[in-house]
Amino acid sequence: MKENITLLGLGNLGMPIAEKLLEAGFPLKVWNRTMSKAEPLVNSGAVLAMSPEEAITPGGILITVLADDRVLKNVIFPDVLKRLGSGGLHISVSTISPETSRELYLQHKNLGSQYLAAPIFARPEAIRTKVGNICLSGDEDARIRARGIVAHFAKGIFDFGDEPGAANIVKLAGNFMIGASIEMMAEAFTFAEKNDISRQAIYEMLTQTLFSAPIFQNYGKMVADHNYKPVAFQLPLGLKDINLVLKTSEASSVPMPMADLIRNRFVSAIAKERTNLDWSALAIGASDEAGL
Amino acid sequence: MKENITLLGLGNLGMPIAEKLLEAGFPLKVWNRTMSKAEPLVNSGAVLAMSPEEAITPGGILITVLADDRVLKNVIFPDVLKRLGSGGLHISVSTISPETSRELYLQHKNLGSQYLAAPIFARPEAIRTKVGNICLSGDEDARIRARGIVAHFAKGIFDFGDEPGAANIVKLAGNFMIGASIEMMAEAFTFAEKNDISRQAIYEMLTQTLFSAPIFQNYGKMVADHNYKPVAFQLPLGLKDINLVLKTSEASSVPMPMADLIRNRFVSAIAKERTNLDWSALAIGASDEAGL
Repeated sequence: MKENITLLGLGNLGMPIAEKLLEAGFPLKVWNRTMSKAEPLVNSGAVLAMSPEEAITPGGILITVLADDRVLKNVIFPDVLKRLGSGGLHISVSTISPETSRELYLQHKNLGSQYLAAPIFARPEAIRTKVGNICLSGDEDARIRARGIVAHFAKGIFDFGDEPGAANIVKLAGNFMIGASIEMMAEAFTFAEKNDISRQAIYEMLTQTLFSAPIFQNYGKMVADHNYKPVAFQLPLGLKDINLVLKTSEASSVPMPMADLIRNRFVSAIAKERTNLDWSALAIGASDEAGL
Repeated sequence: MKENITLLGLGNLGMPIAEKLLEAGFPLKVWNRTMSKAEPLVNSGAVLAMSPEEAITPGGILITVLADDRVLKNVIFPDVLKRLGSGGLHISVSTISPETSRELYLQHKNLGSQYLAAPIFARPEAIRTKVGNICLSGDEDARIRARGIVAHFAKGIFDFGDEPGAANIVKLAGNFMIGASIEMMAEAFTFAEKNDISRQAIYEMLTQTLFSAPIFQNYGKMVADHNYKPVAFQLPLGLKDINLVLKTSEASSVPMPMADLIRNRFVSAIAKERTNLDWSALAIGASDEAGL
């Protein structure tokens, strides 16, 4: 029999994850602050709960795809956790701090349930086409139980062991590297542009050869064309993530000058009211500074 | 009949280029400051000249693979250029400034010969296995003539039009992006390491997924293992290139804060006597700063 799954948070990522789980035939209860978003899921067989607590099946699976550490804690403390109870497993997909994962791990342990950090590298389309990658950390039996579920919406499953915050560390490092890649292309393409080479021409050459990876091909096209829509990951969320990187790097005494630089790009982008663009719009900063 | 080729400079890149041209059956004359390096080539049929000038066939092909702008100019001015003369084509493979390319283009034009900027993205092994990529800029007929030659030692041939400095701009932008990628991995892996995740584990995950490009896979392994040998591109040459990037970015009014950061990593690496390591040893800087 398939496990009962509860999914809290139907944002850009939560929505396609719910779709994939329904396709795979799991009994699914969902909750979202804005309830109307659940409508297409309900039409496909999901049950819409009126509150996070009501969405929980005791001893079942809880998947959270919420905006940040604060929202996650507000939604699940204390009633959701209590109701999940013994035998329950919380798979936490949001990009949050390793500290929050460690705290939740202990809270769950006290209540007889388990917590697994499971941040995913994927834009919404990558969930739908199942090409994203997910990192897991937490108790071994929890990691094994989760595999049978996350395999329905992620392609690569990477195991980072028992320490609950480990997967969050990897996710933060990866998001930092994506942000740095966007900034690096912004500087390089602006350098080309001001020397009479088209942004598209240098984009094509570099992403067909040395930088032939999805990050460079996909974000590079947006940066080359200065086209920061559709918004798969909104710019202020990029600032949230880089702030988590810097908070964690300070806590572990790791200076990260490149992360400082990217943070300032986000802060400037917000000053210039670019909050409704994709986070790759941090790339406009290099053009601004070059007087373009 | 095959064109007569002269190759000046038998360093890490000049050597395998000479090998590939000999394999392809071109009559080849070579010159190098340290003559003994030419011995294996002479055994394979190359002619060793006692001076750059003597190596030239009037109206033939000249390929230069010399260390930097200054060495290039010292070697070819004025006798080599004069002797190459009418009908000659100079294919300049070194990473030099676009200004030097523009200057040489005009000098050649005055003497009836042609100049082509042809910087290559390749480590020595990539020349031998013919997987490197070359960028061309200069007169159209010169680009067409050069293709039949460079195709024997490069896989991708990218055409950047008439403006002689254009290919150098692309090469400098690309080298900047490689340097930035090394620094980005250095910061991310150090962040992981200080949070109890092995450098190798995060390297494996990221370079199998989001960053599955040769730059990240090859340099990333060196950065993960802190193993900066063998030396394919010596660290001070990295500083030379990033200085060319910054000089050119200043001349075209493009602030490049990431390039500034990388320059300082090279300067510090030289202060710490890492001059005999591969340029990817700039990555030690992030570990130094984190007290590792």
